Amino acid sequence: MDETTAHGDPRAMLAVALREARAGLAEGGIPIGAALFGAGGRLLGSGRNRRVQDDDPATHAETAAFRAAGRMRRYADTTMVTTLSPCWYCSGLVRQFGIGHVVIGEAVTFRGGHDWLAGLGVRVTVLDDAECVAMMREFVAARPDLWCEDIGE
Amino acid sequence: MDETTAHGDPRAMLAVALREARAGLAEGGIPIGAALFGAGGRLLGSGRNRRVQDDDPATHAETAAFRAAGRMRRYADTTMVTTLSPCWYCSGLVRQFGIGHVVIGEAVTFRGGHDWLAGLGVRVTVLDDAECVAMMREFVAARPDLWCEDIGE
Repeated sequence: MDETTAHGDPRAMLAVALREARAGLAEGGIPIGAALFGAGGRLLGSGRNRRVQDDDPATHAETAAFRAAGRMRRYADTTMVTTLSPCWYCSGLVRQFGIGHVVIGEAVTFRGGHDWLAGLGVRVTVLDDAECVAMMREFVAARPDLWCEDIGE
Repeated sequence: MDETTAHGDPRAMLAVALREARAGLAEGGIPIGAALFGAGGRLLGSGRNRRVQDDDPATHAETAAFRAAGRMRRYADTTMVTTLSPCWYCSGLVRQFGIGHVVIGEAVTFRGGHDWLAGLGVRVTVLDDAECVAMMREFVAARPDLWCEDIGE
Protein backbone atom coordinates (compact mmCIF):
# COMPACT_ATOMS: atom_id res chain seq x y z
CA MET A 1 0.00 0.00 0.00
CA ASP A 2 1.12 3.52 -0.74
CA GLU A 3 1.48 5.06 2.71
CA THR A 4 0.34 8.48 1.61
CA THR A 5 -3.01 7.37 0.25
CA ALA A 6 -5.45 5.02 1.84
CA HIS A 7 -8.34 5.49 -0.60
CA GLY A 8 -10.82 5.73 2.23
CA ASP A 9 -10.20 2.15 3.36
CA PRO A 10 -10.49 2.11 7.17
CA ARG A 11 -7.99 -0.74 7.61
CA ALA A 12 -5.42 0.97 5.41
CA MET A 13 -5.86 4.20 7.36
CA LEU A 14 -5.59 2.33 10.65
CA ALA A 15 -2.27 0.87 9.52
CA VAL A 16 -0.79 4.38 9.56
CA ALA A 17 -2.07 5.04 13.08
CA LEU A 18 -0.84 1.64 14.24
CA ARG A 19 2.65 2.39 12.98
CA GLU A 20 2.62 5.57 15.07
CA ALA A 21 1.43 3.63 18.13
CA ARG A 22 4.18 1.03 17.74
CA ALA A 23 6.78 3.78 17.38
CA GLY A 24 5.48 5.36 20.59
CA LEU A 25 5.76 2.05 22.42
CA ALA A 26 9.33 1.60 21.18
CA GLU A 27 10.17 5.06 22.57
CA GLY A 28 8.81 4.12 26.00
CA GLY A 29 5.67 6.13 25.40
CA ILE A 30 1.96 5.48 25.55
CA PRO A 31 1.11 3.39 22.46
CA ILE A 32 -1.67 5.38 20.85
CA GLY A 33 -1.35 6.63 17.29
CA ALA A 34 -3.54 8.65 14.96
CA ALA A 35 -3.64 10.10 11.48
CA LEU A 36 -5.76 12.62 9.61
CA PHE A 37 -6.74 11.83 6.04
CA GLY A 38 -8.27 14.09 3.43
CA ALA A 39 -10.87 13.34 0.83
CA GLY A 40 -9.71 10.50 -1.40
CA GLY A 41 -7.60 9.04 1.36
CA ARG A 42 -4.62 11.42 1.18
CA LEU A 43 -2.58 11.40 4.38
CA LEU A 44 -2.55 14.93 5.82
CA GLY A 45 -0.63 14.22 9.00
CA SER A 46 0.00 11.60 11.64
CA GLY A 47 1.29 11.50 15.17
CA ARG A 48 1.35 9.74 18.49
CA ASN A 49 0.86 10.42 22.16
CA ARG A 50 3.88 12.37 23.44
CA ARG A 51 3.32 12.53 27.20
CA VAL A 52 6.45 10.57 28.00
CA GLN A 53 8.65 11.51 25.06
CA ASP A 54 8.19 15.29 25.42
CA ASP A 55 6.82 15.44 28.98
CA ASP A 56 3.81 16.93 27.20
CA PRO A 57 0.40 16.14 28.69
CA ALA A 58 -1.41 18.10 25.96
CA THR A 59 -0.33 16.02 22.99
CA HIS A 60 -2.55 13.03 22.55
CA ALA A 61 -2.30 11.03 19.34
CA GLU A 62 -5.24 12.82 17.72
CA THR A 63 -3.99 16.31 18.58
CA ALA A 64 -0.54 15.34 17.27
CA ALA A 65 -2.05 14.23 13.95
CA PHE A 66 -4.20 17.35 13.79
CA ARG A 67 -1.13 19.54 14.39
CA ALA A 68 0.93 17.63 11.83
CA ALA A 69 -1.73 18.27 9.18
CA GLY A 70 -1.07 22.00 9.53
CA ARG A 71 -3.53 24.87 9.31
CA MET A 72 -6.67 24.11 7.33
CA ARG A 73 -9.93 25.89 6.61
CA ARG A 74 -12.26 22.92 6.49
CA TYR A 75 -12.36 19.46 8.02
CA ALA A 76 -15.77 18.13 6.94
CA ASP A 77 -14.19 15.86 4.34
CA THR A 78 -11.42 14.61 6.61
CA THR A 79 -11.14 11.34 8.50
CA MET A 80 -9.40 11.04 11.85
CA VAL A 81 -8.19 7.51 12.43
CA THR A 82 -7.00 6.55 15.88
CA THR A 83 -5.93 3.28 17.44
CA LEU A 84 -8.13 3.90 20.51
CA SER A 85 -11.53 5.46 21.16
CA PRO A 86 -10.92 9.22 21.46
CA CYS A 87 -11.03 10.66 24.98
CA TRP A 88 -13.21 13.70 25.68
CA TYR A 89 -10.35 16.05 24.87
CA CYS A 90 -9.87 14.50 21.45
CA SER A 91 -13.60 14.06 20.89
CA GLY A 92 -13.96 17.77 21.57
CA LEU A 93 -11.35 18.44 18.90
CA VAL A 94 -13.38 16.43 16.39
CA ARG A 95 -16.56 18.29 17.29
CA GLN A 96 -15.08 21.79 17.28
CA PHE A 97 -13.41 21.42 13.91
CA GLY A 98 -16.19 19.45 12.28
CA ILE A 99 -14.09 16.43 11.32
CA GLY A 100 -16.51 14.31 9.33
CA HIS A 101 -15.44 10.75 10.04
CA VAL A 102 -13.66 9.02 12.89
CA VAL A 103 -12.16 5.54 12.46
CA ILE A 104 -11.34 3.80 15.73
CA GLY A 105 -9.04 0.81 16.11
CA GLU A 106 -10.70 -0.36 19.30
CA ALA A 107 -13.04 0.82 22.04
CA VAL A 108 -12.64 -2.18 24.36
CA THR A 109 -9.85 -1.04 26.67
CA PHE A 110 -11.14 2.54 26.82
CA ARG A 111 -14.35 4.17 25.71
CA GLY A 112 -14.16 7.93 25.19
CA GLY A 113 -16.64 10.27 23.53
CA HIS A 114 -17.29 8.52 20.24
CA ASP A 115 -20.97 7.78 20.95
CA TRP A 116 -21.41 11.49 21.70
CA LEU A 117 -19.82 12.30 18.35
CA ALA A 118 -22.03 9.80 16.53
CA GLY A 119 -25.07 11.42 18.13
CA LEU A 120 -23.92 14.77 16.77
CA GLY A 121 -23.79 13.41 13.23
CA VAL A 122 -20.12 12.45 12.98
CA ARG A 123 -19.61 9.21 11.04
CA VAL A 124 -17.94 6.74 13.41
CA THR A 125 -16.37 3.43 12.39
CA VAL A 126 -15.14 1.07 15.13
CA LEU A 127 -12.89 -1.68 13.76
CA ASP A 128 -12.33 -3.81 16.87
CA ASP A 129 -8.78 -4.49 15.74
CA ALA A 130 -7.03 -7.30 17.61
CA GLU A 131 -3.57 -5.72 17.49
CA CYS A 132 -4.87 -2.43 18.88
CA VAL A 133 -6.62 -4.24 21.73
CA ALA A 134 -3.59 -6.39 22.57
CA MET A 135 -1.18 -3.45 22.52
CA MET A 136 -3.31 -1.35 24.89
CA ARG A 137 -4.12 -4.31 27.19
CA GLU A 138 -0.45 -5.10 27.60
CA PHE A 139 0.46 -1.47 28.11
CA VAL A 140 -2.26 -0.80 30.70
CA ALA A 141 -1.26 -3.95 32.60
CA ALA A 142 2.41 -2.98 32.55
CA ARG A 143 2.05 0.76 33.27
CA PRO A 144 -1.32 1.47 34.93
CA ASP A 145 0.16 4.62 36.53
CA LEU A 146 1.05 6.12 33.18
CA TRP A 147 -2.24 5.16 31.63
CA CYS A 148 -4.28 6.69 34.47
CA GLU A 149 -2.17 9.85 34.25
CA ASP A 150 -2.90 10.13 30.55
CA ILE A 151 -6.65 10.06 31.01
CA GLY A 152 -6.73 12.00 34.28
CA GLU A 153 -8.05 9.15 36.39
CA MET B 1 -0.40 41.47 43.05
CA ASP B 2 2.15 38.69 43.12
CA GLU B 3 1.86 37.16 39.67
CA THR B 4 2.49 33.65 40.85
CA THR B 5 -0.36 33.51 43.35
CA ALA B 6 -3.89 34.68 42.83
CA HIS B 7 -5.40 33.34 46.07
CA GLY B 8 -8.41 32.03 44.22
CA ASP B 9 -9.57 35.50 43.19
CA PRO B 10 -11.12 35.17 39.71
CA ARG B 11 -10.17 38.71 38.63
CA ALA B 12 -6.57 38.22 39.72
CA MET B 13 -6.42 34.92 37.83
CA LEU B 14 -7.99 36.53 34.77
CA ALA B 15 -5.27 39.20 34.81
CA VAL B 16 -2.70 36.50 34.03
CA ALA B 17 -4.77 35.16 31.12
CA LEU B 18 -5.34 38.69 29.83
CA ARG B 19 -1.62 39.38 29.80
CA GLU B 20 -1.18 36.27 27.63
CA ALA B 21 -3.96 37.42 25.29
CA ARG B 22 -2.41 40.88 24.91
CA ALA B 23 0.97 39.31 24.18
CA GLY B 24 -0.64 37.15 21.50
CA LEU B 25 -2.25 40.19 19.91
CA ALA B 26 1.08 42.01 19.90
CA GLU B 27 2.62 39.03 18.08
CA GLY B 28 -0.06 39.18 15.38
CA GLY B 29 -1.83 36.19 16.86
CA ILE B 30 -5.34 35.40 18.03
CA PRO B 31 -5.80 37.23 21.35
CA ILE B 32 -6.92 34.46 23.66
CA GLY B 33 -4.98 33.67 26.82
CA ALA B 34 -5.34 31.15 29.61
CA ALA B 35 -3.70 29.99 32.81
CA LEU B 36 -3.97 26.99 35.12
CA PHE B 37 -3.89 27.62 38.85
CA GLY B 38 -3.52 25.13 41.67
CA ALA B 39 -5.17 25.05 45.06
CA GLY B 40 -4.46 28.25 46.94
CA GLY B 41 -4.10 30.19 43.73
CA ARG B 42 -0.61 29.10 42.73
CA LEU B 43 0.08 29.66 39.04
CA LEU B 44 0.94 26.30 37.44
CA GLY B 45 1.26 27.44 33.84
CA SER B 46 -0.05 29.94 31.34
CA GLY B 47 -0.18 30.26 27.58
CA ARG B 48 -1.90 31.71 24.57
CA ASN B 49 -3.32 30.66 21.24
CA ARG B 50 -0.40 29.86 18.90
CA ARG B 51 -2.11 29.26 15.55
CA VAL B 52 -0.40 32.18 13.87
CA GLN B 53 2.85 32.33 15.82
CA ASP B 54 3.73 28.63 15.39
CA ASP B 55 1.40 27.74 12.51
CA ASP B 56 -0.06 25.37 15.08
CA PRO B 57 -3.82 24.74 14.90
CA ALA B 58 -3.72 22.43 17.93
CA THR B 59 -2.54 24.96 20.49
CA HIS B 60 -5.42 26.93 21.86
CA ALA B 61 -4.86 29.09 24.93
CA GLU B 62 -6.19 26.47 27.31
CA THR B 63 -4.12 23.64 25.85
CA ALA B 64 -1.05 25.89 25.99
CA ALA B 65 -1.64 26.59 29.68
CA PHE B 66 -2.31 22.91 30.35
CA ARG B 67 0.95 21.98 28.62
CA ALA B 68 2.90 24.68 30.45
CA ALA B 69 1.74 23.29 33.78
CA GLY B 70 3.55 20.05 33.00
CA ARG B 71 2.57 16.50 33.83
CA MET B 72 0.25 16.18 36.81
CA ARG B 73 -1.68 13.36 38.46
CA ARG B 74 -4.75 15.26 39.58
CA TYR B 75 -6.64 18.33 38.39
CA ALA B 76 -9.71 18.37 40.65
CA ASP B 77 -8.30 21.24 42.71
CA THR B 78 -7.13 23.27 39.72
CA THR B 79 -8.74 26.28 38.08
CA MET B 80 -8.47 26.96 34.35
CA VAL B 81 -8.92 30.66 33.63
CA THR B 82 -9.41 31.74 30.05
CA THR B 83 -10.23 35.07 28.44
CA LEU B 84 -12.94 33.46 26.27
CA SER B 85 -15.54 30.72 26.71
CA PRO B 86 -13.71 27.45 25.97
CA CYS B 87 -14.48 25.84 22.61
CA TRP B 88 -15.47 22.15 22.48
CA TYR B 89 -11.85 21.10 22.12
CA CYS B 90 -10.85 22.95 25.29
CA SER B 91 -14.06 22.01 27.09
CA GLY B 92 -13.22 18.39 26.32
CA LEU B 93 -9.81 18.92 27.90
CA VAL B 94 -11.47 20.20 31.08
CA ARG B 95 -13.83 17.22 31.19
CA GLN B 96 -11.24 14.55 30.47
CA PHE B 97 -8.80 15.73 33.10
CA GLY B 98 -11.39 16.65 35.69
CA ILE B 99 -10.36 20.29 36.07
CA GLY B 100 -12.56 21.48 38.92
CA HIS B 101 -13.19 25.12 38.12
CA VAL B 102 -13.25 27.20 34.94
CA VAL B 103 -13.09 30.99 35.09
CA ILE B 104 -14.14 32.70 31.84
CA GLY B 105 -13.38 36.29 30.92
CA GLU B 106 -16.33 36.53 28.56
CA ALA B 107 -18.85 34.41 26.71
CA VAL B 108 -20.40 37.18 24.59
CA THR B 109 -18.35 37.00 21.39
CA PHE B 110 -18.19 33.20 21.47
CA ARG B 111 -20.00 30.56 23.48
CA GLY B 112 -18.27 27.20 23.66
CA GLY B 113 -18.98 24.23 25.91
CA HIS B 114 -19.08 25.82 29.32
CA ASP B 115 -22.77 25.09 29.94
CA TRP B 116 -22.03 21.45 29.15
CA LEU B 117 -19.23 21.51 31.70
CA ALA B 118 -21.44 23.13 34.33
CA GLY B 119 -24.03 20.41 33.74
CA LEU B 120 -21.33 17.83 34.41
CA GLY B 121 -20.51 19.37 37.77
CA VAL B 122 -17.61 21.63 36.83
CA ARG B 123 -17.70 24.95 38.69
CA VAL B 124 -17.97 27.69 36.06
CA THR B 125 -17.49 31.41 36.71
CA VAL B 126 -18.22 33.86 33.89
CA LEU B 127 -16.84 37.33 34.59
CA ASP B 128 -18.20 39.31 31.63
CA ASP B 129 -14.99 41.33 31.54
CA ALA B 130 -15.15 44.46 29.37
CA GLU B 131 -11.53 44.29 28.19
CA CYS B 132 -11.90 40.66 27.12
CA VAL B 133 -15.06 41.49 25.16
CA ALA B 134 -13.53 44.55 23.49
CA MET B 135 -10.34 42.73 22.53
CA MET B 136 -12.20 39.84 20.88
CA ARG B 137 -14.77 42.12 19.20
CA GLU B 138 -12.03 44.19 17.62
CA PHE B 139 -10.08 41.12 16.60
CA VAL B 140 -13.06 39.32 15.03
CA ALA B 141 -14.00 42.50 13.12
CA ALA B 142 -10.44 42.95 11.87
CA ARG B 143 -9.62 39.29 11.08
CA PRO B 144 -12.84 37.29 10.58
CA ASP B 145 -10.92 34.82 8.38
CA LEU B 146 -8.47 33.97 11.13
CA TRP B 147 -11.15 33.74 13.77
CA CYS B 148 -13.30 31.38 11.67
CA GLU B 149 -10.24 29.26 10.96
CA ASP B 150 -9.51 28.96 14.67
CA ILE B 151 -12.94 27.60 15.52
CA GLY B 152 -13.40 25.56 12.35
CA GLU B 153 -16.31 27.60 11.00
